Amino acid sequence: MSQNDAAPGQQLWTGRFTEATDAFVERFSASVQFDARLALQDIQGSEAHARMLAARGVLTEAERDAILQGLAEIRQEVVEERFPWSPQLEDVHMNIEHRLTQRIGEAGKKLHTGRSRNDQIATDVRLFLREAIDTIRAELARFQHGLVELAEREADTIMPGFTHLQVAQPVTFGHHMLAWYEMLERDRDRLADCRRRLNQCPLGAAALAGTSFPIDREATARELGFDAPTRNSLDSVSDRDFAIEFCADASLILVHLSRMAEELVLWTSQQFGFIELPDRFCTGSSIMPQKKNPDVAELVRGKAARAQGSLVQLLTLMKGQPLAYNRDNQEDKEPLFDAVDTARDALTAFADMVPALSVNRERCRAAARAGFATATDLADYLVRQGLAFRDAHEVVGRAVRYATEADRDLAELSLEELQQFSTAIGDDVFAVLTLDGSVAARSHVGGTAPEQVRAQAQAARERLA
Amino acid sequence: MSQNDAAPGQQLWTGRFTEATDAFVERFSASVQFDARLALQDIQGSEAHARMLAARGVLTEAERDAILQGLAEIRQEVVEERFPWSPQLEDVHMNIEHRLTQRIGEAGKKLHTGRSRNDQIATDVRLFLREAIDTIRAELARFQHGLVELAEREADTIMPGFTHLQVAQPVTFGHHMLAWYEMLERDRDRLADCRRRLNQCPLGAAALAGTSFPIDREATARELGFDAPTRNSLDSVSDRDFAIEFCADASLILVHLSRMAEELVLWTSQQFGFIELPDRFCTGSSIMPQKKNPDVAELVRGKAARAQGSLVQLLTLMKGQPLAYNRDNQEDKEPLFDAVDTARDALTAFADMVPALSVNRERCRAAARAGFATATDLADYLVRQGLAFRDAHEVVGRAVRYATEADRDLAELSLEELQQFSTAIGDDVFAVLTLDGSVAARSHVGGTAPEQVRAQAQAARERLA
Amino acid sequence: MSQNDAAPGQQLWTGRFTEATDAFVERFSASVQFDARLALQDIQGSEAHARMLAARGVLTEAERDAILQGLAEIRQEVVEERFPWSPQLEDVHMNIEHRLTQRIGEAGKKLHTGRSRNDQIATDVRLFLREAIDTIRAELARFQHGLVELAEREADTIMPGFTHLQVAQPVTFGHHMLAWYEMLERDRDRLADCRRRLNQCPLGAAALAGTSFPIDREATARELGFDAPTRNSLDSVSDRDFAIEFCADASLILVHLSRMAEELVLWTSQQFGFIELPDRFCTGSSIMPQKKNPDVAELVRGKAARAQGSLVQLLTLMKGQPLAYNRDNQEDKEPLFDAVDTARDALTAFADMVPALSVNRERCRAAARAGFATATDLADYLVRQGLAFRDAHEVVGRAVRYATEADRDLAELSLEELQQFSTAIGDDVFAVLTLDGSVAARSHVGGTAPEQVRAQAQAARERLA
Amino acid sequence: MSQNDAAPGQQLWTGRFTEATDAFVERFSASVQFDARLALQDIQGSEAHARMLAARGVLTEAERDAILQGLAEIRQEVVEERFPWSPQLEDVHMNIEHRLTQRIGEAGKKLHTGRSRNDQIATDVRLFLREAIDTIRAELARFQHGLVELAEREADTIMPGFTHLQVAQPVTFGHHMLAWYEMLERDRDRLADCRRRLNQCPLGAAALAGTSFPIDREATARELGFDAPTRNSLDSVSDRDFAIEFCADASLILVHLSRMAEELVLWTSQQFGFIELPDRFCTGSSIMPQKKNPDVAELVRGKAARAQGSLVQLLTLMKGQPLAYNRDNQEDKEPLFDAVDTARDALTAFADMVPALSVNRERCRAAARAGFATATDLADYLVRQGLAFRDAHEVVGRAVRYATEADRDLAELSLEELQQFSTAIGDDVFAVLTLDGSVAARSHVGGTAPEQVRAQAQAARERLA
Repeated sequence: MSQNDAAPGQQLWTGRFTEATDAFVERFSASVQFDARLALQDIQGSEAHARMLAARGVLTEAERDAILQGLAEIRQEVVEERFPWSPQLEDVHMNIEHRLTQRIGEAGKKLHTGRSRNDQIATDVRLFLREAIDTIRAELARFQHGLVELAEREADTIMPGFTHLQVAQPVTFGHHMLAWYEMLERDRDRLADCRRRLNQCPLGAAALAGTSFPIDREATARELGFDAPTRNSLDSVSDRDFAIEFCADASLILVHLSRMAEELVLWTSQQFGFIELPDRFCTGSSIMPQKKNPDVAELVRGKAARAQGSLVQLLTLMKGQPLAYNRDNQEDKEPLFDAVDTARDALTAFADMVPALSVNRERCRAAARAGFATATDLADYLVRQGLAFRDAHEVVGRAVRYATEADRDLAELSLEELQQFSTAIGDDVFAVLTLDGSVAARSHVGGTAPEQVRAQAQAARERLA
Repeated sequence: MSQNDAAPGQQLWTGRFTEATDAFVERFSASVQFDARLALQDIQGSEAHARMLAARGVLTEAERDAILQGLAEIRQEVVEERFPWSPQLEDVHMNIEHRLTQRIGEAGKKLHTGRSRNDQIATDVRLFLREAIDTIRAELARFQHGLVELAEREADTIMPGFTHLQVAQPVTFGHHMLAWYEMLERDRDRLADCRRRLNQCPLGAAALAGTSFPIDREATARELGFDAPTRNSLDSVSDRDFAIEFCADASLILVHLSRMAEELVLWTSQQFGFIELPDRFCTGSSIMPQKKNPDVAELVRGKAARAQGSLVQLLTLMKGQPLAYNRDNQEDKEPLFDAVDTARDALTAFADMVPALSVNRERCRAAARAGFATATDLADYLVRQGLAFRDAHEVVGRAVRYATEADRDLAELSLEELQQFSTAIGDDVFAVLTLDGSVAARSHVGGTAPEQVRAQAQAARERLA
Repeated sequence: MSQNDAAPGQQLWTGRFTEATDAFVERFSASVQFDARLALQDIQGSEAHARMLAARGVLTEAERDAILQGLAEIRQEVVEERFPWSPQLEDVHMNIEHRLTQRIGEAGKKLHTGRSRNDQIATDVRLFLREAIDTIRAELARFQHGLVELAEREADTIMPGFTHLQVAQPVTFGHHMLAWYEMLERDRDRLADCRRRLNQCPLGAAALAGTSFPIDREATARELGFDAPTRNSLDSVSDRDFAIEFCADASLILVHLSRMAEELVLWTSQQFGFIELPDRFCTGSSIMPQKKNPDVAELVRGKAARAQGSLVQLLTLMKGQPLAYNRDNQEDKEPLFDAVDTARDALTAFADMVPALSVNRERCRAAARAGFATATDLADYLVRQGLAFRDAHEVVGRAVRYATEADRDLAELSLEELQQFSTAIGDDVFAVLTLDGSVAARSHVGGTAPEQVRAQAQAARERLA
Repeated sequence: MSQNDAAPGQQLWTGRFTEATDAFVERFSASVQFDARLALQDIQGSEAHARMLAARGVLTEAERDAILQGLAEIRQEVVEERFPWSPQLEDVHMNIEHRLTQRIGEAGKKLHTGRSRNDQIATDVRLFLREAIDTIRAELARFQHGLVELAEREADTIMPGFTHLQVAQPVTFGHHMLAWYEMLERDRDRLADCRRRLNQCPLGAAALAGTSFPIDREATARELGFDAPTRNSLDSVSDRDFAIEFCADASLILVHLSRMAEELVLWTSQQFGFIELPDRFCTGSSIMPQKKNPDVAELVRGKAARAQGSLVQLLTLMKGQPLAYNRDNQEDKEPLFDAVDTARDALTAFADMVPALSVNRERCRAAARAGFATATDLADYLVRQGLAFRDAHEVVGRAVRYATEADRDLAELSLEELQQFSTAIGDDVFAVLTLDGSVAARSHVGGTAPEQVRAQAQAARERLA
């Protein structure tokens, strides 16, 4: 898009102008190289506009039919990549309108009645983004579905839960996958809100004030699948909230994927060795033939920075602009397109890859065993025997210190050894010191117990359906 | 807050440790200087937790009552600013728990049973943010209400509508105010979504895996006014989406206020002179006694950068973290608090100031008259006479050039002069060339006509009620 | 570029791998679509590497000559846009190496001895950025030169100086242009520092640890025009400071251009009318034939957001990465290229346009006259008569209020009227109340007096030479 | 600071004003709560200004002496925290000037002659930042010194070098520490450039145009330790480049510390176990007594986001402002102060902690041994036997696959087994397959060999001296 109310080439406004546009400026300010991506939305909007103008008597039925026929042919050209895009014609709107007039003559020059490039581009972008959101929400759901299956497969697999990247308490692998699911569920929800909010039709706002033609904004809104026309023409042409809101949502999606990527990279390291990724998602090294690198995870982690860059760009872009339309706005499309592509592709990559990972159950369990992960369970046990929580904590601290020096796990101490620290300890303590006992005990809503994981997975499955 | 599972001072974990915390580190890592702000929320959460523990038999009724009594007294101390905050006790949780134990002894040491600072802080922040959102939404509504009144007052006031900061078409001042209203309406809607999404209770997630005590998460969620408990314990302690989503929403609010500020600064300049702000919202100059500066608008414009800084900080903060809790998260509170304060104060300032501005109706109208603002109306007129839109545009271009050279407005040309450019022009043209005719003609939904402004203002008023 | 130590296609690392790369992943992770831009730098680096290997006896002279011949032909293909880029070969390095081996056979397979894609890409990007900085600094100087000429042309032109966008004191247009010059001078200086700092050669760092071949890093550094080899191989392959520092510098350049753009847009508005831009840098409107929009200024203002987006992206990208190389880094090139192009093109546009603007001297002077711009001069006069500054300020405040009510400027009051406010006022006061007197009086270093402007312009001219 | 040309309270500009400042606005726009931090710089600037005014005859010697005496007393009050700060007096300048007039009467009202709060605040901030840079550069050097010592201590310690967080090649721990040193060396260099560039004195620019008093800008610049006065008064009051450049430099420092933190967190995990941090830099857990968390590293990693937030805020703040001063600029100080504190404290924390870490040499070596880290050495060996690099790579790939299946390292294969893959292998191969042989072989400039590490450490030590 371009400064929306300017015409392509010189011909339309040379009246007031005494010299041709500077060649560098022509290149510097053209937008068709990126806004051509909106061609189908632009055509769709023009069709609705033409039908409405005819219904209101502004166009004749013959003019309308000529326009619709011409636009249908142009759509075909675009789809088949035969459309003759011209940078001289500056933007997607003028390219299409010019082509239409070439094809159908006089009627083409009437299509722009009662509208402006300002409301036209606002409509195009909303149509585009609405479709993009639908695609991304579908990829989110596909990835979530894969996570639910993985969670069910590994509902009993014990791994260490980390805080501060230190082993903290045992959790189940399935539980961890459902944590990822939850992040994505919020993302999907946020995008639904964004979609609902953007689904208002700006067509009819014209340049900024509305138009003196007897247009029917409800009709075009309805035909284009919008919930309603927008309520204020100045706001309609200057608002880019939808693009910013989408980029914020995309940034959060990418933050989530980046956090998952961080874990995938850790878990595939020789030091962790918790999982293996299929070869088809990894690359080797030209200089180190032993390497199998988790490139996809790293790339996704890197791409998270990208969505954030787009968000900052759009916020900064809009912050200083008085109403209504300013040419600055031409800069809104590239970051938006980039955020759409980045979110979609990163989701596709993970939706394909993550459910295909294989878990090294033995290494996961061994790692959980190594870090006194059931110390909290001992403290809880003592509380159940009547100690205050803070006192129980001190007892366990001393026991852990003893075990550390003895180079053994708590479960490897004898009852006598344990009773040194508190006489409240009985031989039922060993049940709570096992990894399986520990996870099974956390069986409330949201807890890590296998039965909870299975129940949550089932509920998630229903939510997705 | 702080690394949530660490205890204050040495006493709670010296067991494994052989030296005291470095003095600089103690200062560097303390959080109570900012998280003390969460004291009331922390107390509220503890009350719900204590009641639930007693209902489940983990605490006796006597213990519960002692805790509730102690917390009530502490609340009083906090409210009256008598609470003895101690940086050695590191964070808000340990300060309050320590004070509780001082007051009620043994029972105080039992309060932390079945929870962790990880789920505690997550609960506190959600409670805080929920209240903050309610306050900010109320300020939004108050400002919107003021705009609606101003819009009604100036529904007939004509001013230039600008694109590219060039006079484009006449609009009404009231219409412009309703454009501002619309921006804020989306903001209010977005915050409602954010509130709904955050209103899940993380209490019971404990450190990261849930707890082995027989807790009742529905009960605490209900008592604290949450819609439900969160569904996954790992996610519950590592999720900060709500803070990021709020900061994104706050950034958009501030972008909107910044755009309004940009216009207020322009309009109060000697060159524009469209409005005057009450003296009580302006400052003078120590060196230039003639100045009356729109400081509040400028400050708000400056503060918009601030919310964006908070948003970037939070996104970057979370992007690289593996699950579950890492100490990095301590850094989430200051940007969130700052975004809350910035959004709330900026809204208060504008809600007070903007409805009190006075419009210089004569200068507004004169500015609209000076820029050939009705040229579009002439083009539309020609289309109604049968010219194609693009041809009409050319005719008007020539007429404007003629008028520019003659240093007159279009409406000041004679019929003969106008007919030089098109014989389709009749003497009914002068009605469409007036400013009042131009705005009155844009009377569809969202258009700038006074009657539309009044209808939209009425609808807005109902929406707010 | 790509995960730099991975090879293209399957052939180089299928040994350890049991399945082919996923087709989506191949597309998702390819970089040649953007890093092909580094082809000439890649060839240049390979030439230096080959010569050094031969000098050290790792290659024979015949092998070296074959490689150099092959690379020369490939350079030709690239320059003439005949090079057969292949996405299957993933990145610029593998495309060129593969082509070389096609052309010269066995010797081509030896070129990669003693290096890795990790040090290769680091070298390529530094070479690229060094050239880009030279280009941008030249455009900065060209723009500065134009500003100096404009400053000299308008050294005596009086306009209002603004604070808070309120008329404050008269300044000269030339003085204002030299303020712009100073911003750019700091930009030029910063880029010189950035260039100096990046001009170290990473070649020889290999994958991360250096190489076991007897390489001569000083020789390659020297041949490639670097000041020295880098000092640490791990740092050499993981460092992207130069890209971040450049993007910070570019962001500041664009902030400066955006501030200028803000003023150009204001000054071309009907309300200000201080300047006119040549038609060839403006566009008209398709719907409002009277419009002449300052599109180039608006676009530049919009593009400022873009550089900032790139900066944020790169900082976020690097923040979480452990040493040495991670695939995340592939994401460093697009934002860097974009920042280079944005800074260069925006400078070109302004260097062409700004010196060609014409100043409406009458409107500038009239605006200065209208805002009590010489009130400070009256205060200074009173101080010279013996009043304390703060007392003088009060006297002037009362005089301005009187004049405001009388709708006259201070210079239009009679001596008697002025003496109402202070008997210290004599008839020599009128000299200081004129615009010319006011600017002439500010004749110290950095002041706005025409003679100062001329002297500073002369000094600037010498600095640029 | 505040809108710099506005006076505190009503008294100084009520002349033109008909109502008192709104109470909320007074609080909203006050800056003394943060700019009081600039008190000493403000006094220092005032002293230089007073001396210069007296030297130029604008003040009498008696007035000068009274002012200097009064300022000396105020400095004492500030240092001893006895100064009666008043929010009603809005900012640091008015608080001090008001106090001065209280103390010395009439002469105090003359101090502001020939200056404005606009040049005053610009001077104060530059003085502040110059000191801050000196402090931060000293902390950088102290940390670097600690790294050099650690590098020398661990020059022979072998650890795995990672790419993609996969074991790649053996490096020495000392080499890794010197990579960190290099990052900080660039930071120190960048800050030196920033300091040089900011060290120009804006005093004398007054509000924006200079002053009509016969000031001596060279004199004040000299007395305040600046290299020269600034060259343009408009630029002097509107420029905040120094704050942005500093925040960019600080962001890079923090990115570097964050990358180190990332490694420290990894290396202290149970899975890596490469190092141990002293207890005094760690915390334990209230619920998991076995934990020893690397909190300082995590906090520093989190704080890196903070500097980036400040940078974004400042860029966005300045981007949209026309010259010269706007009240938006009041928002520049908090992010700058925060970036200063964050960079300084994070450096202090690491300069204290990192050199005190202890390396678990056995685990480092064992990890290097486990990942076929010398495969590259075998390839290099084969090249020296005459194979082309790409062919050698294939041979090694097959050997690694064989060894992986046999669950042995390359060095554990027999000569016969190795010769299966290439007959060029002789029994001298085993020397290159050892970890010590591998690192020793990388003995060129920048390579990982212990002797290189020692030489680089020595050179670094000299650079720091």
